Amino acid sequence: MTRRIRITLAYDGTDFHGWQFQPGLPTIQGTLEEIIGGMEGKPVHVAGSGRTDAGVHALAQVAAFTIENPIPADNLRRAVNRLLPPAIRVLNAEEVHMDFHPRFDAVAKTYRYTLFRAEICPPFEYRYVHHHPYPLDEARMIDAARVFEGEHDFGAFAAVDDRDGEGKCTVRTIFNSRLERTGDRLVYTVRGSGFLKHMVRNLVGTLLEIGRGNIDGGTLPEKSGPTAPAKGLTMVSVEYPSLAIAE
Amino acid sequence: MTRRIRITLAYDGTDFHGWQFQPGLPTIQGTLEEIIGGMEGKPVHVAGSGRTDAGVHALAQVAAFTIENPIPADNLRRAVNRLLPPAIRVLNAEEVHMDFHPRFDAVAKTYRYTLFRAEICPPFEYRYVHHHPYPLDEARMIDAARVFEGEHDFGAFAAVDDRDGEGKCTVRTIFNSRLERTGDRLVYTVRGSGFLKHMVRNLVGTLLEIGRGNIDGGTLPEKSGPTAPAKGLTMVSVEYPSLAIAE
Repeated sequence: MTRRIRITLAYDGTDFHGWQFQPGLPTIQGTLEEIIGGMEGKPVHVAGSGRTDAGVHALAQVAAFTIENPIPADNLRRAVNRLLPPAIRVLNAEEVHMDFHPRFDAVAKTYRYTLFRAEICPPFEYRYVHHHPYPLDEARMIDAARVFEGEHDFGAFAAVDDRDGEGKCTVRTIFNSRLERTGDRLVYTVRGSGFLKHMVRNLVGTLLEIGRGNIDGGTLPEKSGPTAPAKGLTMVSVEYPSLAIAE
Repeated sequence: MTRRIRITLAYDGTDFHGWQFQPGLPTIQGTLEEIIGGMEGKPVHVAGSGRTDAGVHALAQVAAFTIENPIPADNLRRAVNRLLPPAIRVLNAEEVHMDFHPRFDAVAKTYRYTLFRAEICPPFEYRYVHHHPYPLDEARMIDAARVFEGEHDFGAFAAVDDRDGEGKCTVRTIFNSRLERTGDRLVYTVRGSGFLKHMVRNLVGTLLEIGRGNIDGGTLPEKSGPTAPAKGLTMVSVEYPSLAIAE
């Protein structure tokens, strides 16, 4: 009998070329498809809630796939974890409705971007932060982060290849956009209906330009600052309507 | 003029073959000697407080070297950090007496060993812990950890090549030996006058055997359990008499 399995994943993206399968390169999707396809005995497509870039991390990425193997979901989780490298962990696996899709059914996503502000970045943290010990007007950045909230055309904050094109909608809603100082970290947390390619990294790049005084942050800027490095970005969570779960 | 510089170092030992120089392999000492020797224009020997094994980490390893370069110590620290890989950071550099030796002058060292007890080890932590989700009598281990305190012959807990030999003293004093549960972590912290090769990893291996019920922990065991994996071990600090500092 055909079953749809939804998994929640944590990963350290440092040593992967992003989510999306690429022949001959280690990717999160490719690694999962190889292991789950091996257990199923035929190719399995693992769909993700979104394609994280190379070097981007996840605390709770959501993915789903269809199999015929009758193994209980929790045993599947354990079996997959035994075969995965330690940089990827399946935190949870559950059976869902056959029509569940992690990308199309998502109603909100939360990302976090961490800037490390002290002069010396600890050797145990450099993979997960963007080390930026240089002067910034943090108070101004903290105010400006709020300006991104609401429904806006974020076309100027998308990667060039996700910006143009006939009829491509670049309007998104940001529910919360907050920058906070916590010890040596300046942490940007953003929750929205969805994000264009590079959008969170471009919002952070814009906040950095505001902090340097190069962009005025009083209103939504018309153009983006340079894309901030991938390593500081972590996908925190993906939200679904509760009815997407089986039973 | 010849100067003696003492540095305090943090490192993630995962990608290094330990402290000690080995031709053609990345080591902490080798990396430092290459950079500092390059700045000095001739070979420089960097002495450490102790040789950490491959995969062992440090929060505050201490090392020292002699140079003629007149660069202020803090500028030297910054210059070396610019050339070091991000997995090694010089936290502090200061001028000390010419006869300072990080190994012979040390009066105490503290190590920490972390066992991760939950079923799933987070991808952001697996480099720094020994993942051990299997049953253990933790209360018994916590009691047994105290038995190591005091002056004892720890010959049975040394690596074989540090155990024998004519006149080699294997008596050491452990000032504090504590095992504590903190969330999902079972953390062993040991502070002593000095440690034989593999001694901390062997003490942890012995605690694990006590936790499994294979060794009785009521008194100091006569033989060691298997050496625990290097990745869970971190050198926390090295202590010196205050007079070892210049001025």
